[in-house]
Amino acid sequence: MPLSKDLEKLIINCIRTLSMDAVQKANSGHPGTPMALAPVAFTIWDRFIKHNPKNPDWPNRDRFVLSAGHASMLIYSLLHINGYNVSIDDIKNFRKLHSICAGHPEYGLTSGVETTTGPLGQGIATSVGMAIAEKWLAEYFNRDGFKIIDYNIYSICSDGDLMEGISGEAASLAGHLGLGNLVWVYDDNEITIEGDTDLAFSEDVGTRFISYGWNVEYVADANDIDSINNAILNSNNQDKPSIIVLKSHIAYGSPNMQDNHLSHGAPLGEEEISLTKEFYGWDPDKTFFVPKEIDEYRESVVRKGEQSEADWKEGFEGYAQKYPELAKEFEILQSGLLPEGWEDELPVFPPDEKGTATRSANGKILNAIGKNVPWLLGGAADVGSSTKTYITDAASFLKNNYKGRNFHFGIREHAMAAAINGMCLSKLRPYASTYFVFSDYMKPSIRLAALMKIPTIYVFTHDSLGVGEDGPTHQPIEHLTALRATPNLEVLRPADANELSVLWKHVLNLNDRPSAFILTRQNVPVIDREKYNSQDGALRGAYIIADTDEFPEIILIATGSEVHICLEVYEALASEGIKVRVVSMPCWSLFDSQSDEYKEEVLPSTIPVRLSVEAGATFGWEKYVGSNGKGRAFGIDRFGESAPGDVVMNEFGFNKDNILSECKKLLKANA
Amino acid sequence: MPLSKDLEKLIINCIRTLSMDAVQKANSGHPGTPMALAPVAFTIWDRFIKHNPKNPDWPNRDRFVLSAGHASMLIYSLLHINGYNVSIDDIKNFRKLHSICAGHPEYGLTSGVETTTGPLGQGIATSVGMAIAEKWLAEYFNRDGFKIIDYNIYSICSDGDLMEGISGEAASLAGHLGLGNLVWVYDDNEITIEGDTDLAFSEDVGTRFISYGWNVEYVADANDIDSINNAILNSNNQDKPSIIVLKSHIAYGSPNMQDNHLSHGAPLGEEEISLTKEFYGWDPDKTFFVPKEIDEYRESVVRKGEQSEADWKEGFEGYAQKYPELAKEFEILQSGLLPEGWEDELPVFPPDEKGTATRSANGKILNAIGKNVPWLLGGAADVGSSTKTYITDAASFLKNNYKGRNFHFGIREHAMAAAINGMCLSKLRPYASTYFVFSDYMKPSIRLAALMKIPTIYVFTHDSLGVGEDGPTHQPIEHLTALRATPNLEVLRPADANELSVLWKHVLNLNDRPSAFILTRQNVPVIDREKYNSQDGALRGAYIIADTDEFPEIILIATGSEVHICLEVYEALASEGIKVRVVSMPCWSLFDSQSDEYKEEVLPSTIPVRLSVEAGATFGWEKYVGSNGKGRAFGIDRFGESAPGDVVMNEFGFNKDNILSECKKLLKANA
Repeated sequence: MPLSKDLEKLIINCIRTLSMDAVQKANSGHPGTPMALAPVAFTIWDRFIKHNPKNPDWPNRDRFVLSAGHASMLIYSLLHINGYNVSIDDIKNFRKLHSICAGHPEYGLTSGVETTTGPLGQGIATSVGMAIAEKWLAEYFNRDGFKIIDYNIYSICSDGDLMEGISGEAASLAGHLGLGNLVWVYDDNEITIEGDTDLAFSEDVGTRFISYGWNVEYVADANDIDSINNAILNSNNQDKPSIIVLKSHIAYGSPNMQDNHLSHGAPLGEEEISLTKEFYGWDPDKTFFVPKEIDEYRESVVRKGEQSEADWKEGFEGYAQKYPELAKEFEILQSGLLPEGWEDELPVFPPDEKGTATRSANGKILNAIGKNVPWLLGGAADVGSSTKTYITDAASFLKNNYKGRNFHFGIREHAMAAAINGMCLSKLRPYASTYFVFSDYMKPSIRLAALMKIPTIYVFTHDSLGVGEDGPTHQPIEHLTALRATPNLEVLRPADANELSVLWKHVLNLNDRPSAFILTRQNVPVIDREKYNSQDGALRGAYIIADTDEFPEIILIATGSEVHICLEVYEALASEGIKVRVVSMPCWSLFDSQSDEYKEEVLPSTIPVRLSVEAGATFGWEKYVGSNGKGRAFGIDRFGESAPGDVVMNEFGFNKDNILSECKKLLKANA
Repeated sequence: MPLSKDLEKLIINCIRTLSMDAVQKANSGHPGTPMALAPVAFTIWDRFIKHNPKNPDWPNRDRFVLSAGHASMLIYSLLHINGYNVSIDDIKNFRKLHSICAGHPEYGLTSGVETTTGPLGQGIATSVGMAIAEKWLAEYFNRDGFKIIDYNIYSICSDGDLMEGISGEAASLAGHLGLGNLVWVYDDNEITIEGDTDLAFSEDVGTRFISYGWNVEYVADANDIDSINNAILNSNNQDKPSIIVLKSHIAYGSPNMQDNHLSHGAPLGEEEISLTKEFYGWDPDKTFFVPKEIDEYRESVVRKGEQSEADWKEGFEGYAQKYPELAKEFEILQSGLLPEGWEDELPVFPPDEKGTATRSANGKILNAIGKNVPWLLGGAADVGSSTKTYITDAASFLKNNYKGRNFHFGIREHAMAAAINGMCLSKLRPYASTYFVFSDYMKPSIRLAALMKIPTIYVFTHDSLGVGEDGPTHQPIEHLTALRATPNLEVLRPADANELSVLWKHVLNLNDRPSAFILTRQNVPVIDREKYNSQDGALRGAYIIADTDEFPEIILIATGSEVHICLEVYEALASEGIKVRVVSMPCWSLFDSQSDEYKEEVLPSTIPVRLSVEAGATFGWEKYVGSNGKGRAFGIDRFGESAPGDVVMNEFGFNKDNILSECKKLLKANA
């Protein structure tokens, strides 16, 4: 039963007035876009979105992503009107400390917010990952007569979203994959912060999306609900993603501010708000006013939502009877757990002097886990054959095979990172892989994963100077530092295949943060654990891998490919009677989270003579080696060189002889 | 006089065989693309490029950018054949330590290489900056009858370049600006590392570029020189940028490897090379063979190049007579210097308790310098009104006004950063501006500037939690760390308007590295320099801004907006008779480069009780406050909150009372 035109108008204007009032009260925010887009948002939510406001986690809900996150009052108004857990008081506290109505929509803070948005381009790119996840989940779980998974993803985006490069990457990927479950609404308002889009943006967006293989719909008037409705209907009936190019007027209805870029990012002012409310036929004296008709509407939405989920649950019960194993898997997946025994086949690698590149060991571990965790999936930015992240007994995820678990993201690192955010938000356990130096291209999306506390996994290979011939453009230096300094991100640089294996166990058990593996291109020995301490120490972030029976004169601390060098140095020093300890430290944050006792045990404050060895920037190592001159950080604080990997490593002193000599210098200076 | 078909073929095949041989000898590299693209590269260089191999810095040369940097042997072969300073021995040393033929082309290492490429998308995006620079320089310097500046920019790019989001940003910007001096050749070989482009890339590139407002040319056969020639001729005759979509065969001529993705990134093998040479009509037993006809060709290229520059110089002499002032400016600009007296109007700000945001002060300083340095120019990624980087007496740089100095890069941070690399490589002094948190979007291009040692300038505002309501997506935390750890990048976070002013002086005198200013959104006091030490100390990176007459019990070290808080704490402590020193440390790298004596003077090792105060990650501060528990770093190692800026700063303890209490705790613990 369609709503009356009057009620539609009332709801739309309520979205608008709540948005204006909230921005005004906060004295900060973006009123113009919620005012312009209230009709399209209303149409999507009222006529299309399948959801249950009382259970925002219902797995089969449609997803709505406000990529233009600055227009956050649009979604808060929608959530309030639709019966989510957002009260008028919450809206009155918009942009106040600890409010659930934060400046930009934050996943985890506000129920009904599907992903954190604000940095432009991220929302739409994440929506591509959500659409990928829906296709995969549907393919994996649905059976004849049981459409357990069947939902769409809607996203509203702005000029800014589409100017960001990530939008091109994400749209090209979505078009390639034929994601017919995806609809973007492009707010074509011809306004940006600096002024008219004429200043910087004159591309033909529709044609651009046709080039990506999208369906393009045009709506000439953002207030024309019927046209919007038809455009969405057409979009939902495609085997490709759709974009609706919607001509809108920023701050619609404001007599003096409509179509003015100054209405983008600042309150309208009390007076203008009054005039605008009058234009809407709203009582200009009322603020934060929600008419009682909307209370009734809210109740009907909630009832309908509860019924939708109840119907789905009924279907799921039938499914569970017919496919108990699948239903169990579905529930495990939805609760963020892993199948029992998932780690049973985690490989233990025999000691091997010649060794193996940790990227290669990673391929084996990934496959061993992947066998037991069907929703562990991912891929690379066109370097899968180098990063060795293929799941060998799975197919490629392609337009004609959504069952595939190997993703070909193309040379689109940024969209890859955002896509796995969307996949992870849909409860998959995705990984993304490329050369470590190109983590720079992905950083904005990695940061969002950390902020959202979601367990995405990054497999970064080619982790140092050891890359060799490709030279300084491909040799990471500052990247370990940059990721380690990012809050809530686990950065792991294992010394060998066995550390890596136990760290994968750690990582898959994490549910509240992303993790980044930093792996070698070159071979490193598989350390003999009969001779040296067990790799299980890696689970504490840092551990004594080799020690003296007496009180150490010096502690060597190393990560990754430098650990085995330090073990060689250890043998050399020990043979000279020098008392030395070696600490392998694959993960700073994990070590920092240990008890003070453990930390003191590994790095006693009474032993200040320490040398850290890591083929990356020394930045921050003073934390562990001190800054009083007794300890020293050995690393590389300049750009690298193009030459074979071992030659470059030698050139910069990452070899036994040089580290040995560094140790002796340090010991002498402190004698 | 056109070359004979035979000679053309000989040169093309020489490019191919040198490339195969070099990759084979290095046992590393990418042979397939040079083999495919030798004809188009030859055509551009032989028929179109205006250059003087004996003076690769001739200002009016055409620019050639190999965006597909992995195909580096293509450019090294070209440089050798064209008489640049690249010998056969250099090519034999391809990818060897200290060779000028590095794995990827490096600016500054190899003459004739216009920009460092390798990270995909960077080359083409940089070429847009070069095209912008040409337009600006032509507009500024040319006069009737004197086309001092009149050149084109050619770039060769791959699927990978075009998949990267930065390509969309850069192309959209170039189309918007109507850069008719720009020609990209797109190597449409349907191959990437993982396999066919079918796996990940099916967009219609031509249509995509039409949407950006480009001219699109198609060449169906990469060996068809006449078609290539015509496509370039058409391209050079446009008031918009052009892309030539060139169908090619990777590893063309190799009987077993042509069109195979395995020929992308690995040597072909001796046997296959022999077979391929036979196909080319080349002696299969000769390696690194350059026929004597090519030696003759080289001589003719060099002669022609010298003549071109000589003709230009003659024209320039006439110009210098008629426009001596302009000619002088041109020479100053070309030598990387600044007009005499450029710093004369640098403002000194009177003490002011209420103060001013450093972003606002920056606007004033920028304008004061800009008045005297016409080629100081730049803009923002659509937030110029917030970052306050407009040059008020200059126009916008737009399609119909290439004289403008205010750039509207659009919400395209990454392309902005790459564009200013291209502008800087063309001797302008460009700046790029956005909110600090979005430096993440720019990082790959910032890194290249640092690697190339070019003096680009970044103006990052909204530098901390002080951003306020926009919340954690907009509040930088780890960003200072990430940039400080990047080699060769000057990161400057001034305490007030006057520190900023002297640091601008420092920055504009730097010619060998990029600099990033980190500026506040919120007001900070202009510190009273009668009462506290002079801002000139900022030129040493860190300096004592307030001190006790006696031996300090504690040192406070702060940057940016936290310095004035520490001065308040200083007054409070001093009034209690506690002996305290405050160090303002706007630039770590600058301080680290000072003499040991100076460093010891500012931070004496005898005073271990220290507190650093910075509204960012504490990561790395142990370097200055120690890690023995006597000093402490006060900062924020989690994500922020959405609320008014002062509220957020207070919430996280960045206020006088809390810092005072931190000091007392520290003093007590060390008593």
